[in-house]
Formats: sequence, structure tokens, C-alpha cells
Amino acid sequence: MNIEQLRADTPGVEQLIHFNNAGAALMPDPVIEVMTRHLQLEARIGGYEAAGQQSVEVENVYEDIGRLINARPEEIAVIENATRAWDMAFYSLPLRPGDVVLTSTTEYAGNYIPYLQLKQQRGIEIRVIPNDEQGQVSLPALRDMLGDDRVALVSLPVIATNGGPVQPIEQIGALARAAGVLFLLDACQGVGQMPIDVQKIGCHMLAATSRKYLRGPRGMGFLYVEKTLCENLEPAFLDLHAASLLTPDTFKIRGDARRFENWECNVAAKLGMGAAARYALAQGIEPMWQRIQRLSAHLRNRLADVPGVTPQDMGAIKSGIVTFTCQNAGAAHVKDWLAGQEKRINVTTSTFRSTMLDMQQRDLLEVSRASLHAYNTEAEIDAMVNALLRMPRS
Amino acid sequence: MNIEQLRADTPGVEQLIHFNNAGAALMPDPVIEVMTRHLQLEARIGGYEAAGQQSVEVENVYEDIGRLINARPEEIAVIENATRAWDMAFYSLPLRPGDVVLTSTTEYAGNYIPYLQLKQQRGIEIRVIPNDEQGQVSLPALRDMLGDDRVALVSLPVIATNGGPVQPIEQIGALARAAGVLFLLDACQGVGQMPIDVQKIGCHMLAATSRKYLRGPRGMGFLYVEKTLCENLEPAFLDLHAASLLTPDTFKIRGDARRFENWECNVAAKLGMGAAARYALAQGIEPMWQRIQRLSAHLRNRLADVPGVTPQDMGAIKSGIVTFTCQNAGAAHVKDWLAGQEKRINVTTSTFRSTMLDMQQRDLLEVSRASLHAYNTEAEIDAMVNALLRMPRS
Repeated sequence: MNIEQLRADTPGVEQLIHFNNAGAALMPDPVIEVMTRHLQLEARIGGYEAAGQQSVEVENVYEDIGRLINARPEEIAVIENATRAWDMAFYSLPLRPGDVVLTSTTEYAGNYIPYLQLKQQRGIEIRVIPNDEQGQVSLPALRDMLGDDRVALVSLPVIATNGGPVQPIEQIGALARAAGVLFLLDACQGVGQMPIDVQKIGCHMLAATSRKYLRGPRGMGFLYVEKTLCENLEPAFLDLHAASLLTPDTFKIRGDARRFENWECNVAAKLGMGAAARYALAQGIEPMWQRIQRLSAHLRNRLADVPGVTPQDMGAIKSGIVTFTCQNAGAAHVKDWLAGQEKRINVTTSTFRSTMLDMQQRDLLEVSRASLHAYNTEAEIDAMVNALLRMPRS
Repeated sequence: MNIEQLRADTPGVEQLIHFNNAGAALMPDPVIEVMTRHLQLEARIGGYEAAGQQSVEVENVYEDIGRLINARPEEIAVIENATRAWDMAFYSLPLRPGDVVLTSTTEYAGNYIPYLQLKQQRGIEIRVIPNDEQGQVSLPALRDMLGDDRVALVSLPVIATNGGPVQPIEQIGALARAAGVLFLLDACQGVGQMPIDVQKIGCHMLAATSRKYLRGPRGMGFLYVEKTLCENLEPAFLDLHAASLLTPDTFKIRGDARRFENWECNVAAKLGMGAAARYALAQGIEPMWQRIQRLSAHLRNRLADVPGVTPQDMGAIKSGIVTFTCQNAGAAHVKDWLAGQEKRINVTTSTFRSTMLDMQQRDLLEVSRASLHAYNTEAEIDAMVNALLRMPRS
């Protein structure tokens, strides 16, 4: 990997130290350029006319996202964001009273609230897969739980918003497949950070965002739905892009994954996400993943030496999301201190309300979160650690 | 109105004649600038950090949209686009078997397909309000139909995608209110073109887009939900922005209209829509509406003099969307001819598949659509008419 080039492509690194890649990463030049250029084109010749002129490039976005996760272009829907992408999969499932959804302690409240909503509305049941001693989903426990034929869905995030383990998704996928149970993977924190191959994982559906490790724009995401499932899954919402009116009484839903899309689209952001996918593929996902793991291990090691600081991630495999607590300072204070004028280090806080099960189990109310990308450096990590060493109590 | 300034603010008018404002209008400079600036800020300091820095401006978007339609900011949800805004209203309604939805012949297939979906899924019934002799919704017929207490919803567009009448929305609203029936207004083609005042209309819900007559960016829209209805309407999709997890078994949905939003947002486009609303308000909606009607009447008059061309709009009040057919040329040919190198006139085609009921009733398969905005001129109209006079047969 050419780190100098990676940083030269990233104007933000000259301004500050960005350790909020799990929130929204710094976009590289090719992403910013493709979006700015398209907005200018829209202003000059009109929004639809610009999309028409860029129709090949728009179509290529499906190819590029497909290459990124080893899926066919017709299995990809480009959706406004990962939340709505996930929603279009989850809420479209024909879940019935008594159906069981299996999830992990690391599940995000954004997904957990929909489970609770369908528990209220349709009488589904939520069961949480226990963790093994290292903190990730216990595979023997999952195997046992899949023995209940009321289990209709396994649904969990590959990496939690508050760090923790990289879940053993290939093994989870294999167990779900063997049991004939659908597997919906929230890959928001995985795509762009680590290799995500839907064939190897065997998931039936996968939702992801553009803005996190993929380094694309905000307000854009995608959904993968395996071809055979797709054809049998009626989207929760339809329109005249997802379906066609045949007569005033009949309609036909399109065959590919775009049945989960709708007519309108932020074309500039869609092209931006495509550019981000190409950029990530050009860097190489595997070397980026290696570097992210190396950098985050370095940060965890250094944090362990800071008095009063406790690294909080668990799991046999850890990601670029590094979480920690400080004995004498709340997470808001840590964030503000690091963001201070001379330091300009972006970290964030992750609270109880976004990953309640996990935080309860670990008896935490909040953590500080520093999420590292391949464009970050050891020098940046050292600057953060030094700033923490100088941090006053809150 | 200062037309010269309006055109000076619109870089696109130097390039071509844009009569596709019902598709996506040309954005004015203040919209392009606010978006480009925000994207640059995101690239420099991070997506969340940029949103934090612009938090007042982001909040102002709700004020600006509220002013535009005379609603309270807490009654506004900013949503990815008008389709999903409309969906979040429609699919959240507790419609039951036998409930009747009243719509107009001018309804858009994008909304009509969801009616058919809920007819299949929930057994609702769709009834189409007949038109009066001028082509708009017959108010006496609507009054009669509202007499059936199975009617649960009136749902229609203020202006159809293929032109035609401006529906008498204030009278429709008054009848619906008097009958205690909910009224969902699709204002996609109305907002930015004509005065839209939710208090006067009395609609309970209104969905609109940024990209059409409002002149904002693509991939952005909003939903209005009246305060008292809002509090009783559980969104079809939830997440941790729309609701909060209180315990691992309970959640609470937020009180304002943002319960129909989700966590993630294309902030640049959101700010762009706010800038578009401010720009429209600064021009004055009423003078723009007067000018749009004057220009479109001029175009209809001139078209009537072109041999073989038939203006196709009906209604006592007509909008800036001018539709017509040509005896010797299909709509695709008209579009291509007008777009030709020396002419560069953007018009579009509207087909049977997007407004089937209306087109069937009028025995049309397609129409050409020239949609005019206040920044257009009589000289541009004359150029289009002259180009049509020279058009070869298709």
C-alpha cells in the first residue's frame, strides 16, 4: 500500500486527525470530484438530462458494488442509506406470529427497535445468541438455537457500532444455510474495512452504507439480496420503478434487486458511492484490512499504557473501531478535549442507547470510540495518546 | 419579479432551454453553492463533524420548509425523496379490510401501485372520483362518495405528472375534513410552483420533492404530518432516530414528524433543499405562480397554431406543465428533435404507464411534456414553437 498516495488523495488529513471512520470517513478526491462534477452538470443541463448523459456510469455503480462484495449486479439495490436498505429487507420478510429472530448482543438499536416493533405488531419473538468466552457469537449456542424450527431469521451486524468483535460471519452463514434459515447481515461497519464476500458468507441479504469505511458520501447505501430470495420477496414499499402497472388493476414487480429501490435517486451521491467502491478496490481490501488491524492493535496497546484508560474491545478478531473508557473523564469530555483547537482529533462517543444489550452485559454506559482507517498513521495514534496523557479530569 | 436576476442566478439557462421543470428544474446558484460548500466541508473535517458545525443551518431547513407550506417545523420530516416521504405516510396508515381510498383519475402510478398492493395485502378498496366537465375532480361526486363511512382516505396529486388540471385542493380538503376523512396530498408538482398552504388546504399529510419546481437537489424531499395525527401514527419503519430504546423490551417513538425520518441523511442535499425553499420564498411564490401560468398559457396558445399539434391539458386552472400531442410524430421523436444540437430544448415524454387512468380516459398513449418555470421566457417558448414548425415527421 502506498500510504503517502492514500493521504495525498485525502484532503482532510491535512486539516485534522480523523478517527471517526466508523461515523463517516474522509472522502478521497475521486469521490468528491465525481459528485461535484455531477452536481455542476445537473445545474448546467438539468437533473434528468445529466443522469441520461451519465447512464453508463450510473449502471457501472451496480457492477462496482457487485465486485466489492462478490455479488451479481442484479442482486444489488442502491438505496438512500443503510437504514432504509436494511429496512427494505427486514420489513419485507413475511414474518408471522411465533417466528423467531436470532440476533447478537452487539446488535444496533437501529435494528433492534424494528424487531421490537414487529414483536408488538406481528408477535415475532426475539432471541439473543449468547457470546463465547472471547465475546463473539457462540457458534455451538447458535447451532443449538437453530434447531428450533420456529427460527426464521438470523440478523446481526458483522462489527458493532461500539467496536467489539468481528463476528464469525462465514461460520454463522454456514450454520444458517444448513438450518435453512435466512441470514440478514448488517455490514455497515464491514464494507470498505475488511473483505466482505457474500458467496463465502452465504448471507441472503446484506445492507451497507457508503459513508463509513467505504469512504463514499453521506446519504447513500446499498442492499444485496440473493437472486432466488429476491424473486420471492415482495418489497414493503412499491412504486413505478419497483413495479409496473399492467392494467388499472394489476401490477408486476420487477425481477432484480432494484425492486427494493424507488424511482428517485440522488445521482451525484450514487456516482460518489461507485467511485468510493472503485477507489477501495484499487487500494486492495485485504491490504487495507491488514493495515487497519495493525494500526488499531497499536492504538489498543498504547492506550493500555495510559493511566486510567481501559481499552474495551472484545473478540478473537478486532476491527478498526477502538473503544475505551477513562476513569476520570466522561466520553463527551474526551471527545471535546481531543477535538480542541491545537489537537483537532476527531473521536466520538458511543452510548448505551445505541447498543443496549452489549453495554448492559459489560456494565458500561458509554465508551469513547476512535475508529481508524488505512489512511491513518502511527504518528496520528501517538498524537492522540499524548493528548490523552495530558487530559485534565472532567 | 426580476427575471434578469432570476436568470443570472441560473447558470443552466445560458446552456439550453429547460422545459423539464416537472422532472427536475435547473438549480439556482445559492442551492449549488450551499451543497458544494458542504461537500467540501465534509471532505475537510468529516461528515458528522461538518453536520455538527452546520447544526443551526440544518435545523433551519425545517423552519424554511415550514414557512413554504405554512406548517410548524415540528410537523416536517425531511426524507430522502418524495416517494419515500409519501410511502412513510401512506404505508403507516392503519388501513383495514374494506377501508376505501378515494383518488383521482390523475393519480400517479407511483402512488396507485401502493393502493393496489394494499388491496392485495389488506383488502382495501380503491375508488376513483369522477371528473367534472372541465376535467378536475367533481366536488359534488366527492361529497357523495364521502358519505360512505368506509371511506378512510382521500389521496391524490395537486397536479398530475402529465399536466392537466390543478385540483381544487382547498375544496377537497374542506369536504374531507367535514366528513372526518384523512387527506393525503401529493404536492410534488405543486410545491415551488404555486401557493401551497396546509392550513388553507386542510390536508393531514403532504409529500413533496426538492428537485422539481422547488429547484432544489435530486434525492431529497419532505413530508408534512399534522401535529395531532402525527402523534397517533406509528411509522411503517422505525430506527433509533425515530424512536429510542428505553429497555431491551420497550421503545418510545418521538413526538414530532421526525418519527418518519431515519438517522442517516444526505446533509448536503438537505441544506440544498433549505436553500431552495429560501430562494423560492425570496422570489415570492405568488408572483412566480402568476408568471408560470402566463407563460404556459402563452405556450398553449402558440401550440394551438402549429399544424398537427394538439394541446392536451384540461381543467379550469392549468399549471406550468404543458402537454401536447403531434399528429405526425411520437413523443420520443419530439423530445429528440427539440434536444438536437442547435436547439437544445429539454422537454420530455409522459406515458400511459405513469398515469394510466387519465390516459385511458382520454384515449392517449403518450404526450409530450414541456414544463415551464418562472425563469423561462417568451423568447424560449417562441424558439420551441419555431422548432416544432420545422420538425420532420417521425
